[in-house]
Amino acid sequence: MTPADAAIAEPIADRSAQGQPADLAAAMGGIGRRARAAAAVVANSSDAQRREALQAAAAAIRAGADRIAEANARDVELGREKGLSAALLDRLLLTPARIESMAAGVEAVAALPDPVGRTLAAWDRPNGLRIERRSVPIGVIAIVYESRPNVTADAGSLCLRAGNVAILRGGSESFHSSGEILAALRAGLSAADLPADALQSPPSRDRAAVGHLLRMAEFVDVVVPRGGRSLIERVMAESRVPVLAHLEGLNHTYLHAAADLTKARAITLNAKMRRVSVCGATETLLVDASAAARLLPPVLDELIAAGCEVRGCPRTRGLDARVKAATEEDWRTEYLEAILAVRVVDGLEGALDHIARYGSRHTEAIVTEDPAAAEAFLTRVDAAIVLHNASTQFADGGEFGMGAEIGIATGKLPPRGPVGAEQLTSYKYLVRGDGQTRP
Amino acid sequence: MTPADAAIAEPIADRSAQGQPADLAAAMGGIGRRARAAAAVVANSSDAQRREALQAAAAAIRAGADRIAEANARDVELGREKGLSAALLDRLLLTPARIESMAAGVEAVAALPDPVGRTLAAWDRPNGLRIERRSVPIGVIAIVYESRPNVTADAGSLCLRAGNVAILRGGSESFHSSGEILAALRAGLSAADLPADALQSPPSRDRAAVGHLLRMAEFVDVVVPRGGRSLIERVMAESRVPVLAHLEGLNHTYLHAAADLTKARAITLNAKMRRVSVCGATETLLVDASAAARLLPPVLDELIAAGCEVRGCPRTRGLDARVKAATEEDWRTEYLEAILAVRVVDGLEGALDHIARYGSRHTEAIVTEDPAAAEAFLTRVDAAIVLHNASTQFADGGEFGMGAEIGIATGKLPPRGPVGAEQLTSYKYLVRGDGQTRP
Repeated sequence: MTPADAAIAEPIADRSAQGQPADLAAAMGGIGRRARAAAAVVANSSDAQRREALQAAAAAIRAGADRIAEANARDVELGREKGLSAALLDRLLLTPARIESMAAGVEAVAALPDPVGRTLAAWDRPNGLRIERRSVPIGVIAIVYESRPNVTADAGSLCLRAGNVAILRGGSESFHSSGEILAALRAGLSAADLPADALQSPPSRDRAAVGHLLRMAEFVDVVVPRGGRSLIERVMAESRVPVLAHLEGLNHTYLHAAADLTKARAITLNAKMRRVSVCGATETLLVDASAAARLLPPVLDELIAAGCEVRGCPRTRGLDARVKAATEEDWRTEYLEAILAVRVVDGLEGALDHIARYGSRHTEAIVTEDPAAAEAFLTRVDAAIVLHNASTQFADGGEFGMGAEIGIATGKLPPRGPVGAEQLTSYKYLVRGDGQTRP
Repeated sequence: MTPADAAIAEPIADRSAQGQPADLAAAMGGIGRRARAAAAVVANSSDAQRREALQAAAAAIRAGADRIAEANARDVELGREKGLSAALLDRLLLTPARIESMAAGVEAVAALPDPVGRTLAAWDRPNGLRIERRSVPIGVIAIVYESRPNVTADAGSLCLRAGNVAILRGGSESFHSSGEILAALRAGLSAADLPADALQSPPSRDRAAVGHLLRMAEFVDVVVPRGGRSLIERVMAESRVPVLAHLEGLNHTYLHAAADLTKARAITLNAKMRRVSVCGATETLLVDASAAARLLPPVLDELIAAGCEVRGCPRTRGLDARVKAATEEDWRTEYLEAILAVRVVDGLEGALDHIARYGSRHTEAIVTEDPAAAEAFLTRVDAAIVLHNASTQFADGGEFGMGAEIGIATGKLPPRGPVGAEQLTSYKYLVRGDGQTRP
């Protein structure tokens, strides 16, 4: 019985009453120590062994689908009693199709090429030393996320694929579902003769567990927060452990003077409306003043027809009476809704200035047929992802060909941008000599 | 007149009396804002421009050698009054030869290949999108260091070479010397038409400036502490900004059963005694039980003859009566002195266990003629640098061919190991399409 199983076996009332702070601290310390020990084993496991563990985990998710659904029904019921919104309840819900999709996702991660043990660079020194930079697992990764039980499978499997171990702390509303999914993943580890402690969760839904994780620098190498801005800001403010954060996607699409109208219409509609709630969605449209009369009316026609609310600067409103007035706050807002801010800017420099001031360094796009303007934009905009003549909604590890991603990192240090299995590795230097000493 | 110049122009007494907390906060905020603005310019500067700035800075250091020496004399005098140790005074002292060497170092950094704008990877997607991962500057780097004025030139020039800007906060005892060196570097920037604010320092020697730097996440992308353990631990504990830390080098050299005696003697002597105060120095020698009688006496002869104190486990002492008794504390101590801890271990597994328990993940070496044992050691030891048949004192960016380094990073996330100009870059993704939208 895993710790999660044990916790699930107790009635909720007992569990919220239990967990004196000292007990939780001791339990978290134990989890950290076991994670560190498991990391040494997993780091030296073979590619085949890690693949086998993930395939067995997928099979265990399928075999345990009824138990997972039952645990999920309890979570959903408790969530309803607690008054969760329809959107949050939908994120929490696991249908049979979603459980199958989770298992298939774990299999897809198993099929990714091994990111560990690659020679990233190699060179010889004049004294005969041969130096190799080789990819290695990071070690222990703590994932702190909201009540989306599928993240347990997605993030856990991606960490393991890269030879890491993970401590998974999901939102308390998904406690039972995540516990059952974790049990299936751990069954997969055991089936492949890997330590089950390579994937663990805190013993209770006590939020203080997050605080402990953020202070266990001895046992945790990096913490990855996944969720809304407040969660990520709390983690960044409190953590003594390096944080791999996806802060927000306040993304722009810039229609340059030389934009093709057909592309501008299709890209803008897709960038804003394909899915409004994803971090790659465009939040502000910038339009070059010299082409605004040509581009804006047809682009806005399409957006408004698709149900998008448009808020614009005075020049935008001068071209289209349907546009509401935008305020300074609109340039700073990641709506994640069917609302678009629109601003007319003066040339490439105007667009670059606006993006430097308001952008969140996530994803920025230019639409133009002028190659020089495109290269200037791609080079000069400081963002994890910059695109020419393509939708910002391509900001996604899967779309980049990474197979799966744990998020899009918005910090300046690597890994930056989509974080897939390859980005969940570090490296070390292997130096081979035949007796060299340093003069 | 630079801010540092202005501060230098005031008498010390005034300076320690000034600097109300609110004033300092405002001054640091201004420095941060100016650094961020300068970063946007430097990030888009040409390779030639950054090289020209560094060459002009080297010339300004030479031209200002007298002023630098004079400022340094004041620092040394104040340090003496303050009762600094001889070792600290020596670190602080700038002789004409040291000033020339600093200028030459800046020129060497100028001559490094441009690490910015390299295509690190490129691939095409089935939908026709072309994806490029390209190296870019990190942005604003804060360097917090002890009273070693040469670090101002070394770290400042390395940051600039990689297109970054830096806020340099050296130890208060080197305040005048560092201010003059900074003025020379800023003269170089101006000569190359780059913003002088690409290199700045806090306005006073108030230690609270460090606290402000560690909280300016809006303006500072990474902080690099350089110095002793207490400085680095303080930075790691307090920082809201990502930290690139070199924590300590508790390094081992392991003499395997199949070690060649000649190599074992030369490597051990060099690894411990070449320079005892560097982070790459070996602190503990591990010797295989099956070869201890053959290897230890001659290896220890050489060490003791060179003036090294040896502290050993009971089995070591059984082989050599000159060895003092080691305690548990010795396995945990980074001496940085002419003291070596010695332990006899049982086989490769015994060595790996000891290193996993006591090592600091910095640099670890094996001496053996058995290729399989060597590969097992290199693969299984978790450290930034692992060596076979070579001295741990090769743990140095210069020895790796990087030209210069800002330190050896001991965290698990990249950059790990020696941090040269290339490691002071990040990357972004450039995506080129012809109208693609996401289905």
